Amino acid sequence: MSSCPSQVFPVVWYENSVLLIDQTRLPHEYGFVEIHRCEDMAQAIKTMIVRGAPAIGVAAAYGMYLGGRAIQTQNRDEFLHQLEEVAVMLRATRPTAVNLFWAIARMLKTAYETLGSVAEIQQALLQTAQTINAEDLHTCQAIGDRGLEVLPSTPEKLNILTHCNAGALATAGYGTALGVVRCAWAKGRLARVYADETRPRLQGAKLTAWECVQDGIPVTLITDSMAAHCMQRGLIHAVVVGADRIAANGDTANKIGTYSLAIVAQAHNIPFFVAAPRSTIDFSLASGSEIPIEERDASEIYAIGDTTITPEGVEFYNPAFDVTPADLITAIITEYGAFAPNQLQEKLQANLV
Amino acid sequence: MSSCPSQVFPVVWYENSVLLIDQTRLPHEYGFVEIHRCEDMAQAIKTMIVRGAPAIGVAAAYGMYLGGRAIQTQNRDEFLHQLEEVAVMLRATRPTAVNLFWAIARMLKTAYETLGSVAEIQQALLQTAQTINAEDLHTCQAIGDRGLEVLPSTPEKLNILTHCNAGALATAGYGTALGVVRCAWAKGRLARVYADETRPRLQGAKLTAWECVQDGIPVTLITDSMAAHCMQRGLIHAVVVGADRIAANGDTANKIGTYSLAIVAQAHNIPFFVAAPRSTIDFSLASGSEIPIEERDASEIYAIGDTTITPEGVEFYNPAFDVTPADLITAIITEYGAFAPNQLQEKLQANLV
Repeated sequence: MSSCPSQVFPVVWYENSVLLIDQTRLPHEYGFVEIHRCEDMAQAIKTMIVRGAPAIGVAAAYGMYLGGRAIQTQNRDEFLHQLEEVAVMLRATRPTAVNLFWAIARMLKTAYETLGSVAEIQQALLQTAQTINAEDLHTCQAIGDRGLEVLPSTPEKLNILTHCNAGALATAGYGTALGVVRCAWAKGRLARVYADETRPRLQGAKLTAWECVQDGIPVTLITDSMAAHCMQRGLIHAVVVGADRIAANGDTANKIGTYSLAIVAQAHNIPFFVAAPRSTIDFSLASGSEIPIEERDASEIYAIGDTTITPEGVEFYNPAFDVTPADLITAIITEYGAFAPNQLQEKLQANLV
Repeated sequence: MSSCPSQVFPVVWYENSVLLIDQTRLPHEYGFVEIHRCEDMAQAIKTMIVRGAPAIGVAAAYGMYLGGRAIQTQNRDEFLHQLEEVAVMLRATRPTAVNLFWAIARMLKTAYETLGSVAEIQQALLQTAQTINAEDLHTCQAIGDRGLEVLPSTPEKLNILTHCNAGALATAGYGTALGVVRCAWAKGRLARVYADETRPRLQGAKLTAWECVQDGIPVTLITDSMAAHCMQRGLIHAVVVGADRIAANGDTANKIGTYSLAIVAQAHNIPFFVAAPRSTIDFSLASGSEIPIEERDASEIYAIGDTTITPEGVEFYNPAFDVTPADLITAIITEYGAFAPNQLQEKLQANLV
């Protein structure tokens, strides 16, 4: 495992509740929200107090436990029925990231497969949530190591461009895309991160920049539209981004703007990597056209803090994600290794968790 | 000439001073700044109270007159010497838009070529500034007409994507890219404008959106990173942008993000048009690599209104423009017609004003 561990853990189980770093208040305030009920976890996912596909998965797992803990019955069938309702509520929070659905399915599986009393099922749910949490941290560290192996060998110190935040904050810790960055930094292979600010919600400016500063990694913030210009000027050696859902053919849904970035990277012959855990791959979808794309509220575009930037009478379109076709992706970096998009089925479909 | 005249005139000569629409306060406040001195005009150009390559040219022309008017000498040579100093000051405001240098040169030419008293030179300077102003308005209307001729013939009603603001506010009135849009709207060829918000200064969100709303043209605002996704979804039929300086080979400097847009347009086989007056073409530069690119203050990125979006310790890169290579440009639409980039020298170099 590589060193340079991030000290940032966005989802923590502590004294019978879940502590979430409130990511809507970063970088100005670093504080926690205490979550005791599954309804509050659903709200926290929806409002992006916790965000990032793997972190949403971990949070939803704990949400399933919190929901299960509150069910007032000793009847196993009634318990499972009510737990399914908790799952329905949590699934309705955000449609694109598949880790949410994966984690909920795994928690339900635990419940159905645990024999014994309701109390024993509840205990097993907590254990599975904690396992998902711990596994994700190890997965991210493995992604970092695997990513380092496929980064360009020259120059020795790379400038890596990333989009949105696929960092410690987006996972159990350490990060996927930023896991690769952290690993490169620890091994002396990184000169600098270029971070797209990532409109509309500015996760690059607020979260990725903050994580880099925390770890002492040099970071230059640019607006999203500057990436191509930076590539033209020779400032970027590789692009590494995260993913919210990857179809069986390697088409990848990630934060809006990723697709644009992949096109301009290819136009400059710059390698474009997607870093994501195996659990982000949805082998039930043949291609990216089947991935549901969340549209979020227009206020994310027209309001920045207390500032309204647009006149009355304007319409808005606010897709939160886009789909990058597999042929623009150099490799998908998972905890099992980095693979060309068309190798995913052969190499990974068997590794079902 | 097409109809649908915009009623927006960002630079107006009125009662012995220049009225500038304060574009830093739009869309919330529509008001004017009164400019009496060339120093104030230089400051207004630098701080982007007036912006947009053609509008900067018109403003600088009036700035030259205001500077000339204030010169306290009856000696012709001394007058010309001091007027050269006014030119130096105005040229130092913004480096990329060539219209600034073109308008200043034309004003100096007027001064040198006007025989007679200092008072007569001053009078000639005012006339030339007013001529530049009036010509630019007619030029924009001609660009609109020429642009309409080269827009795709299907579908009947087009969705046109534009970046930044190349509208009435960026010219004497009517606009270059938005001149084409206005002409298409007047002739029933336009369904909708898609406007990139254009970070960091948000000219799309604040100015282009405002102009469209003023004229009743349907407008959908997107963040810059959404353009490729909109193209992938079939929402965009053509891209039309302005220009700050065009090299002899057709390479075009325009607002940062234009280059990225041109790459993604080509990737989707969507025609990409640059709309600009002949005066934006700088035949003294063989290619775009010779165009100076202005870098502006980092606060344009990290501060939005009263909101600071980034943590301490982050670095910034803020190029205000980028260069789109000629081979990504379908045609350059001028008042003399629309030409492939490699035709500019043959078709237009003789039309020296």
